[in-house]
Amino acid sequence: MELTSLLNDSTCHIVLVVMDGLGGFADAQFDSELEQATTPNLDRLAAEGVVGLTLPAGAGITAGSGPGHLALFGYDPTEYELGRGVLSATGVEFDLRPGDIAARGNLCTLDDEGNVTDRRAGRIADDRAQALTDALNDGVKVDGVEAMFRHISSHRVLAVLRGEGLDHRIADLDPQKTGVPPKDPAPLDPAAEHTADVLRDVDAAIREVLSGQDGADALLLRGFDTHHDLPSFADRYALRAATVAIYPMYRGVAKLCGMDTLPRPSGLGEQIATMRDRWDDYDYFFLHHKKTDEAGHDGKRDEKVAAIEAMDAVIPDIVALEPDVIAVTGDHSSPTQLSGHSWHPVPTLLWGPHVGRDNVTSFGERACAGGLLGQRPTQQLMPIMLASAGKLEKYGA
Amino acid sequence: MELTSLLNDSTCHIVLVVMDGLGGFADAQFDSELEQATTPNLDRLAAEGVVGLTLPAGAGITAGSGPGHLALFGYDPTEYELGRGVLSATGVEFDLRPGDIAARGNLCTLDDEGNVTDRRAGRIADDRAQALTDALNDGVKVDGVEAMFRHISSHRVLAVLRGEGLDHRIADLDPQKTGVPPKDPAPLDPAAEHTADVLRDVDAAIREVLSGQDGADALLLRGFDTHHDLPSFADRYALRAATVAIYPMYRGVAKLCGMDTLPRPSGLGEQIATMRDRWDDYDYFFLHHKKTDEAGHDGKRDEKVAAIEAMDAVIPDIVALEPDVIAVTGDHSSPTQLSGHSWHPVPTLLWGPHVGRDNVTSFGERACAGGLLGQRPTQQLMPIMLASAGKLEKYGA
Repeated sequence: MELTSLLNDSTCHIVLVVMDGLGGFADAQFDSELEQATTPNLDRLAAEGVVGLTLPAGAGITAGSGPGHLALFGYDPTEYELGRGVLSATGVEFDLRPGDIAARGNLCTLDDEGNVTDRRAGRIADDRAQALTDALNDGVKVDGVEAMFRHISSHRVLAVLRGEGLDHRIADLDPQKTGVPPKDPAPLDPAAEHTADVLRDVDAAIREVLSGQDGADALLLRGFDTHHDLPSFADRYALRAATVAIYPMYRGVAKLCGMDTLPRPSGLGEQIATMRDRWDDYDYFFLHHKKTDEAGHDGKRDEKVAAIEAMDAVIPDIVALEPDVIAVTGDHSSPTQLSGHSWHPVPTLLWGPHVGRDNVTSFGERACAGGLLGQRPTQQLMPIMLASAGKLEKYGA
Repeated sequence: MELTSLLNDSTCHIVLVVMDGLGGFADAQFDSELEQATTPNLDRLAAEGVVGLTLPAGAGITAGSGPGHLALFGYDPTEYELGRGVLSATGVEFDLRPGDIAARGNLCTLDDEGNVTDRRAGRIADDRAQALTDALNDGVKVDGVEAMFRHISSHRVLAVLRGEGLDHRIADLDPQKTGVPPKDPAPLDPAAEHTADVLRDVDAAIREVLSGQDGADALLLRGFDTHHDLPSFADRYALRAATVAIYPMYRGVAKLCGMDTLPRPSGLGEQIATMRDRWDDYDYFFLHHKKTDEAGHDGKRDEKVAAIEAMDAVIPDIVALEPDVIAVTGDHSSPTQLSGHSWHPVPTLLWGPHVGRDNVTSFGERACAGGLLGQRPTQQLMPIMLASAGKLEKYGA
């Protein structure tokens, strides 16, 4: 049975609040960051709604931000794989065209024998990396293909190839360790042999340009991918959807799903003001909060707790808009104990007049284990939100 | 692994108690109806057994009675779709044959321009609708096809076409709104073009007959379907199964699954007396209680609570039969707040000497969130019931 066959054309108001990397875990020393945070407003939503735990990509799987968000948007993250190259392109708002090949590159240093000495070129400064990227755009000329570069941040660079007959099924050139040379371009499918040949020339041209510059000697490319046409929110859910995300990558993923990207807000207050201003123009708003994940990556417990509390403080402003349903969750876990993404289930709450209630009265990982939402794939949130907002008709007589 | 490969030929006693539309939800004003009801006997079963929440057709999906019951019987409701036409046929115990096309019809009124003015012909009285149905059976004559009509209730009529080369893949003629004409028969598959042509003639003949009668002007047909051969309980589960349902539709679905339909009881007392009388003739009894859903549809909280309490009162009589396992659940939720079916998970309990126990001591949605049965597709109940009744052998050495 297709969900689309059950959709009606009613309007509604769904708000998805994503605290990036929200989930954590308790151990001998600590509660989870969410459990430690003082969150009276989220606790109120938990008490008045239902809670549970969500798994973006399956038991034990640590999800990246791409699959994490696709799952939140109701797309099967194993069916719609977004390579790092495409996510990097969306992240700098590069307008990838059908047939383009995108990869994420690390500016790196090599020794005299061509072995990698630092995969991040000493975490090269932004202005130097930008100068190197400009030099690459000026100097990398290869027959039959256009090579384009965009600086992302520090050592991170987007590389895009545009030309006839390119295929993205190419193994990473990045060896992921030092003391060895970058890998030679290798096709993962016979159809990508031409692309591998082109890449060999591009790689040589990159090194030639960088040899005349200070700061880096090569670009380690990985995550080759191509433009994807994802089915849109309008087609899949009959929703007019918009994002008030701040960071380019999340705006980019939302755009891939056909959401409107509203003018970039500067912080939580502006994100909510933008939602309020455009409230009647959309059925669905995606509100993304990045600071929880940043603090998780840096292993900074106090900062992650503070980022959660900052979101808690604006919850009443979202409730005041009187949405049909609010979901508060994360795209994956980012426990400060691990300084990075993890597989731990993500605490999740749903709130709204027809959502129902359970006996849980606070929002935290351990409390969520007893909630009515149960433990489920993240992807299942979307149909429950649609149902709670009155968008789904009965299945079968 | 096929369940059938694990079945043994032991006899057993499984009782499935379905309170139709049992599930509900708590909100700012109300507990769920089940939580509000005084149910000492169901609470005892919950305390002595295991509880959980079941989803008949997936997260967020509001199931109709057809898919809801198929899931309870262990059939994948998305694999075995029963159209409204077939459910209407089972509902009046019409013996649908292979190749027959069945549809549900609404007696309706039209204005002078042929636009629908009332999709239910003013909720026409039963005796008048019966007279119109008789007239249709007498008067609708179309070459190459036999058209049969059965009155269901009020404006509801079953229409069956019997003839060579018919195909049920026809779009609804019912426009589902007033002020527009009934839709022209349209094939959903090229193979149904002949059927669409036949239907055009049938529709014209129906209007011709009704033009000579008072009360309705046309029959809005929808839910075209054909006879299905479902695998039987005997083949799937090696069970001798019977139903003591009262309402024709539920008796009909049970019959489609190969259950015996025991003489129609008049109420809960007779349903249980019939089970008791035939206890040793069957391994499995399906006991259906309709009043919970009727009250849910009507938004009558007190009546739904009373219907639950009426079932609670007869639980000791079922326990006294000493079954191997009793399941008490619903085919879907029907919260009085929504006056209709909903997507909310259905509270479910299993009780029996080998079922096990959890810490939950009352039967209600929020209590069930903490039960050992967890939250799972309704379809999974059947194997657990079979196992609890000793019908399933070990898988693997």
